Amino acid sequence: MVDPVPRQIPSPDAVQRAIDLLKGAKHPLILLGKGAAYAQADAAIRALVETSGIPYLPMSMAKGLLPDNHPQSAAAARSFVLAEADVVVLIGARLNWLLAHGKGKTWGAPKKFIQIDIAPTEIDSNVAIAAPVIGDIGSCVSALLAGIKFGFSKPSADWTASIQARKDKNLAKMAAMLDQSPVPMNFHGALRAIRDVLKKRPDINVVNEGANTLDFARSIVDMYEPRKRFDSGTWGIMGIGMGYAIGAAVTSRLPVVAIEGDSAFGFSGMELETICRYQLPVVTIVFNNNGVYRGTDVNPTGGADVAPTVFVKGARYDKMIEAFGGIGYHATTPAELSKFLIEAIAAGKPALINAVIDEAAGTESGRLTNLNPASTATKK
Amino acid sequence: MVDPVPRQIPSPDAVQRAIDLLKGAKHPLILLGKGAAYAQADAAIRALVETSGIPYLPMSMAKGLLPDNHPQSAAAARSFVLAEADVVVLIGARLNWLLAHGKGKTWGAPKKFIQIDIAPTEIDSNVAIAAPVIGDIGSCVSALLAGIKFGFSKPSADWTASIQARKDKNLAKMAAMLDQSPVPMNFHGALRAIRDVLKKRPDINVVNEGANTLDFARSIVDMYEPRKRFDSGTWGIMGIGMGYAIGAAVTSRLPVVAIEGDSAFGFSGMELETICRYQLPVVTIVFNNNGVYRGTDVNPTGGADVAPTVFVKGARYDKMIEAFGGIGYHATTPAELSKFLIEAIAAGKPALINAVIDEAAGTESGRLTNLNPASTATKK
Amino acid sequence: MVDPVPRQIPSPDAVQRAIDLLKGAKHPLILLGKGAAYAQADAAIRALVETSGIPYLPMSMAKGLLPDNHPQSAAAARSFVLAEADVVVLIGARLNWLLAHGKGKTWGAPKKFIQIDIAPTEIDSNVAIAAPVIGDIGSCVSALLAGIKFGFSKPSADWTASIQARKDKNLAKMAAMLDQSPVPMNFHGALRAIRDVLKKRPDINVVNEGANTLDFARSIVDMYEPRKRFDSGTWGIMGIGMGYAIGAAVTSRLPVVAIEGDSAFGFSGMELETICRYQLPVVTIVFNNNGVYRGTDVNPTGGADVAPTVFVKGARYDKMIEAFGGIGYHATTPAELSKFLIEAIAAGKPALINAVIDEAAGTESGRLTNLNPASTATKK
Amino acid sequence: MVDPVPRQIPSPDAVQRAIDLLKGAKHPLILLGKGAAYAQADAAIRALVETSGIPYLPMSMAKGLLPDNHPQSAAAARSFVLAEADVVVLIGARLNWLLAHGKGKTWGAPKKFIQIDIAPTEIDSNVAIAAPVIGDIGSCVSALLAGIKFGFSKPSADWTASIQARKDKNLAKMAAMLDQSPVPMNFHGALRAIRDVLKKRPDINVVNEGANTLDFARSIVDMYEPRKRFDSGTWGIMGIGMGYAIGAAVTSRLPVVAIEGDSAFGFSGMELETICRYQLPVVTIVFNNNGVYRGTDVNPTGGADVAPTVFVKGARYDKMIEAFGGIGYHATTPAELSKFLIEAIAAGKPALINAVIDEAAGTESGRLTNLNPASTATKK
Repeated sequence: MVDPVPRQIPSPDAVQRAIDLLKGAKHPLILLGKGAAYAQADAAIRALVETSGIPYLPMSMAKGLLPDNHPQSAAAARSFVLAEADVVVLIGARLNWLLAHGKGKTWGAPKKFIQIDIAPTEIDSNVAIAAPVIGDIGSCVSALLAGIKFGFSKPSADWTASIQARKDKNLAKMAAMLDQSPVPMNFHGALRAIRDVLKKRPDINVVNEGANTLDFARSIVDMYEPRKRFDSGTWGIMGIGMGYAIGAAVTSRLPVVAIEGDSAFGFSGMELETICRYQLPVVTIVFNNNGVYRGTDVNPTGGADVAPTVFVKGARYDKMIEAFGGIGYHATTPAELSKFLIEAIAAGKPALINAVIDEAAGTESGRLTNLNPASTATKK
Repeated sequence: MVDPVPRQIPSPDAVQRAIDLLKGAKHPLILLGKGAAYAQADAAIRALVETSGIPYLPMSMAKGLLPDNHPQSAAAARSFVLAEADVVVLIGARLNWLLAHGKGKTWGAPKKFIQIDIAPTEIDSNVAIAAPVIGDIGSCVSALLAGIKFGFSKPSADWTASIQARKDKNLAKMAAMLDQSPVPMNFHGALRAIRDVLKKRPDINVVNEGANTLDFARSIVDMYEPRKRFDSGTWGIMGIGMGYAIGAAVTSRLPVVAIEGDSAFGFSGMELETICRYQLPVVTIVFNNNGVYRGTDVNPTGGADVAPTVFVKGARYDKMIEAFGGIGYHATTPAELSKFLIEAIAAGKPALINAVIDEAAGTESGRLTNLNPASTATKK
Repeated sequence: MVDPVPRQIPSPDAVQRAIDLLKGAKHPLILLGKGAAYAQADAAIRALVETSGIPYLPMSMAKGLLPDNHPQSAAAARSFVLAEADVVVLIGARLNWLLAHGKGKTWGAPKKFIQIDIAPTEIDSNVAIAAPVIGDIGSCVSALLAGIKFGFSKPSADWTASIQARKDKNLAKMAAMLDQSPVPMNFHGALRAIRDVLKKRPDINVVNEGANTLDFARSIVDMYEPRKRFDSGTWGIMGIGMGYAIGAAVTSRLPVVAIEGDSAFGFSGMELETICRYQLPVVTIVFNNNGVYRGTDVNPTGGADVAPTVFVKGARYDKMIEAFGGIGYHATTPAELSKFLIEAIAAGKPALINAVIDEAAGTESGRLTNLNPASTATKK
Repeated sequence: MVDPVPRQIPSPDAVQRAIDLLKGAKHPLILLGKGAAYAQADAAIRALVETSGIPYLPMSMAKGLLPDNHPQSAAAARSFVLAEADVVVLIGARLNWLLAHGKGKTWGAPKKFIQIDIAPTEIDSNVAIAAPVIGDIGSCVSALLAGIKFGFSKPSADWTASIQARKDKNLAKMAAMLDQSPVPMNFHGALRAIRDVLKKRPDINVVNEGANTLDFARSIVDMYEPRKRFDSGTWGIMGIGMGYAIGAAVTSRLPVVAIEGDSAFGFSGMELETICRYQLPVVTIVFNNNGVYRGTDVNPTGGADVAPTVFVKGARYDKMIEAFGGIGYHATTPAELSKFLIEAIAAGKPALINAVIDEAAGTESGRLTNLNPASTATKK
C-alpha cells in the first residue's frame, strides 16, 4: 500500500476556533485518550502539553504517553480538575461512560470542549462540542501547537497551584495507605511492590484486568512509555488479559507482566498452556482474594453452597502453571511478591505469582450489584 | 452544530504524489463521481478541469457538474478514453461494478489511479491506487489545483485530438439515429424530443429509471446544472423514481420530469395519488413498450398466458393520473411528446405522458436473462 | 411424498380431560379459528357443533366453516358470549391480541379453556389452558365427538335462550342501520348491497382489507362456504389484498370479489395491471371515502396541504383499471353498487367499482392514533 | 402446566404402512437415536426390539437404552448392517451427516426407511421416507409393537447368523487390540481400563469429548443404562464436556466420569475451579498425548516453535486440579489408571487423572486437515 495511514489535516478555521477558545480559558485541561496513544504522535503531544503548560489527564490506555510522574500530570487530582476546568481539550478521547458522557456531577460547572478526533461522526455524540477539530491526531496537535506560538499565555499560577495543592494532599493520603502494607496483603500493599519493580523496567508491557485489581492498579502503577499498558478498555471486556499478554509478548519481543484479578483470570486462564508452549516471557500475577470483589460473601439463600461470588478458598494458581512446566510462585507478603517478580522477569520465562490478598480487602467495583433484581438471588 | 461538515484537508505529501503522477501522464483523464456532486465544490472542480485541460467523464449522477456540452467532456468517447488513458483521477467516484472494478477489457492497457475520496477505507478496494488523496473533495481538488499552477503542461494535442476525432464519429452516428424518428417511436426519437425541451430548462430536476429507458436517457439527455439528475444509482434500485420525484419537488420547489420505463414505473406507480394530493409539479413520462425490455416476447411454455416479461398491451398510463385529477397525455410521435411536455411543464401541475414506444424497439439490458436457469422457464 | 399431512392423534387422557370439563360446563362456547378452516375437517367440526348443541363463534377467516346463518352461531352476540361463557373450546384459534389474550374485561368472569391445536408449544402462551388437546384438528374433533356420545347433555335452555335474546336485539339494531341506506352511501348501505349479491353466490372468494371497511364487512357480509374469505389476518397486514385476489383467482378458478378500503388499496393497487394482463375474474370494490378512516380531517398545522390522513378528494379508481383495459364502474348508491356488482361478476372479467362513501361516515379504527406522540404532528 | 409433554399418537394408517413394510423385510434393522433416549419410553423400545427380534444399532447418545451387551446389538457389526439392511426403522434418529445422510457407500444397496419422529418436518429431509410415523416415540413404538403381535415373523436365521459372524470376527480383532496394553498407553489400553471399572457402576454419568478419545471411547466403553452418556453430539461442539459434567452431577446427584481429549479439555478446563468450589463428584480423565490427534507433528515452516497441533509436552493436568484443592492423579499404565479411577469414584470428590498416552498413538480424526488449503500452512 502506498499510504496505509494517510494524514488528514484539520481545517484552519477549525484550528483557529479551537485556539481562540483555548486563549480565553481560565482553567484549561488536556485529556489524553487511547486514540492519542494509537496515533503515534508522541513528540507532538508532549510538545503541546509542555509548550502550553496546560495540566493534563491520561485515560487508562494513554498512560505513559507522557511519563506518569510528569509535573503537569493532574492524575492525582482527577476529580478536582474535571470539576473545575472551564475548557477541556479532548485528544483522541471520547465522552462515553468512562467520562460520564461529558456531563453531570463529575464535570461540575459548565465547560466547553475542544475535541480532536479522526472521525467527524464522533462530534456532539453526548454533549455539544464547541470546537471540533477533525483530522489525524498528529496533524491536529501540530496545528494547535503552531497556533499557540503567539499570543497564548500559560495557565495562571492560581490554577496550577490549586491543582498542585490537591495533588499533594491526595498523594500524601495515598502514600500513607501504600506504606501500611499489612499481612495478609491488601491491594495497596501488593501494588506498591509491583509498582516499585516496574518503575525500573519502563520497557515492560503491563496487562491489567479485574475489578478492584484494575481500579487500584490503574492509579498506583505508573507508566513511563507509551502503548505499554493493555487493560479491559472502554467496555471492560473480562477475559481479554491472557490474549493481550500473548499478543504483546509475540509482537514486541519484550516481557509482559499481567496483573489479573482472580475472577478475570478465570475467563481465559487455560491460555497458560499457550504461554508455556511458546515459552513466552509472560509473568502473570493473580490477585487472589477468594472471590469476586472479596471472598467473604455468604450464600444469601442459607444453603450449603458458597455464595455465587466466592471461589475455592486458598486456590493455588501457581500450581496451574506448574502443570505446563512454567514457574509458580506463592507470595503472601509485599516483600515476597517483589522478590518473585524481579526473579521471574529476570528469568524471561513463563511464570505465575499467586498473590494472596486479604479476602476482606476488596469492595464492590462500579456498584453493579445494585442494578440486579434483589428478589431473584435473596431468600425470602 | 458548530461545524456539521468539517473540511478535511489532504496531506501535502499525498497531494504532491498525485501531482507528480499527473505531470508524468501522457493520456490523463478525470472521472467525476456522484461524490463530487454531493461535495458541492462545483467551482473548484470546474477550475481543476479547465486549468489542467484534462478531458473528463461524468458518472451518471455527476452529469451537470460541468455542462454536458463542455468541450472537455469525453462522454461521447467513453469507451475510447477508459481504454486509452494512462493516469485517471477519480474524484468522488469508486471503482465498483459500474466501472468494471477498475480492471479488465474496459480499462485496456495498465494505468495508474489517483483517487480523491473522503474515506480512507475506500482506497485499494478493487485495484491498487497509486496516489490516494484523502480529504473532502473541495479541499483535495483545491490542493491539486494549486499544485498544477507551476510546471504542469496541458495534455498533448495528440491525446485531445484523438478524443475529439472519436467524439465526432460517435456523435455523428448518434445524430443519425436521433434524426430518424420513426412512428411508432423508438427510444431515440422519444428521448431526442425530451432532450430538446429540457435543454431550455436546465433548472428542472430529472428523475430516470428503467432498463433501456435508463441506458439511453443517460447518454442522450444532457444536464447543465449539478445535482439535478436522480437515477437508480450504483445498485440499480427499481421503484425509487416516484419517491425521488416527490422528494425533489418538495425540497427544491422546482419542477420535476420523471423519465420512467413502464416496468420501473409499475413498482411505485400508486404514488401518482400522492403527487396529485399535494399538487406537486411532477411530469411523469412512461416509456410504454408493452413489456420488460420489449413487448414482443412469447410465452415459452406455449400456454394461453402472455410471456412473463410482457404487460397489458396498449396500457393507457395517462388514465391512471386522471383517476386522481392529474392531467393525462397520450403521445405517439416525438412532436406530440414534445408539445405535451412543454405544456405540462408550463402548467406546473401533476401530469403523466403515456409515450407509446414501438414494442419491438428495446433490447435486453445488461444481459441478465442469460444468468437464469433456462430449464425452469422453457418448455421441454 | 407418502404422507404429506400426517394425522396426529391426541392422547385419550387429554381427550377425556377435555370431555370431563365440557360435561361440567354451564355456559359452554366453541370458538373456531382459521386453523380449523385450514385443517379441512369441515364435516367433523359441523358434527361436533351440532351434536353438542354448543353455541359457536367463528373468527374472521373461519367464517363459512358453518354457514353464518346457522342457528347456533353466536356471532351476533359476540361480546355477550365471550363474557358469559364458563368453558371455551378453542378449535384452531389462538389467544392472541385478536382475542384480548384470553383475559381482561372482554372475557368477563373467570373461565376454563379447552385448546385444540397442532402445536404443543402454543399451549399456555397467554393464559393457563385447563385442557390442552394436541393433534391435528380433524383427529382431535372426532375424538371429542366420540367422547360426548354418552353422558353429555346439551347446553341448558337458559344459556341458549339468553344468547338468542341478545342476538335478536343486536340483529334488530343492525337491520335498522342497514335499512337506512342514505346517499351518499355509508359503510352499512354499501355492504348491505354487497351482502345481498354475494348471498346468491356462496362459491365466490371474498377478499377484504381496510379499517372501517374490514371491521364492518366482517360482521355484515355472511359466508356460507369454508376457506372463501381472505382478510388481513391476525397481524392486519395492509396491502395483501390484491395479492390474495390474484392467488385465489388463479388457484380456485372461481371469481373473486375484493372489498378494499381506499387506503388499503393504495398499497398494491398497481396489481390491477397484473389482474388485467392475465384476465382474471376479479372484481375490486374500493370504498372511497377520501381518506384514512374518513376524509374530513383538517391539516393540524394549518398549512395549505391536506391533512396527512386525507387523499385526493373524489378520486376515480375506476379510471385506473380502464388504463389497463379492465371495466370501471362508478357507484354512488346501493342500487348502483348492486347492479354493477351483479354485472361484473357475470362478465367474469377484471373490473373495479369505485364505491363513493360519505367522507364523514368512518371512524378511527382500533383507536391507534392516540398512541402517536401528538406533539410531532401538531402546531404549537 | 396440566400436560407439559402431551402424547401425540400416530395415525393408524401410518402405523399399518410401517408394519406392512416391516413384514416384508428380509434384512430389517432398528436404529436408535438420542431422540429415543430423550423420549423416556425405555420399556416400550426394549419390548419392540426383543419381541420383533430385529437387530439394532444405537447412536452415540442412545447407548444404554438397551445394555450395550444385548445379544441383538449389532454395534460390533455396524458397517455390515448399514450396508446390508433392506428396511431400517429409525427411532428418534435423523439422517444427518452422522448417518451419511441416508445414502451413498455407507448404506450399500437401496433400502427403505420407516422413520418414527415427533416432527413431521423432519421427514424426507435427505432421502425419501417410505413409511413416516409421526408422534411421540412412546406412542409410536407401542403402536408398532401392537401391530407385530400377529403375522410377523422374526428375522431369518440367515440374517442374524451373518451379523453374529461379523460381530464375532470384529470383537476378536478388538479384543486382541485391547489386550496388548503397551506402555506408554495407547487409546485402547487406557479405555479398556476405564471400561472395566465403569462396567461395575452403570449408574455413573459418562461425559466424552475429543477426537480419537471420542471415536474410540464411543465404541469401547459400554453403557448399561439410558441417558448416562453425554458427548459432543451431532455437531461435535468442543468444550461442552466440563459444562455437561457440572450439569450432570448437579441434576442427577450421581458421580460423573469425564473422558476428555487434551485438546477438548483445553476449551473449558478452568471449570475445574467450579467443580472444586461446589465439591462435585466429577472425575475428569485427560487423555494426554501432547497434541491434537497426536504429539509428534513437526512445525511445517521449520521455525523454532512447535507445530500448531502440538501442546506442552508432558503437561501435568493433575496439578491443575490440585491448584483448587481437588485430587490429582498421574497414570502411566492401565493398571494405575484403573486403580486411580476406582479410588476417585469411591472418594466422591473432585479429581483429575492425567492419563499419559503414547504421543504417536493417535491419528487424524475425520480427515479434516485435508480440507485446509495446504499452501497457507506449508513452507514453500
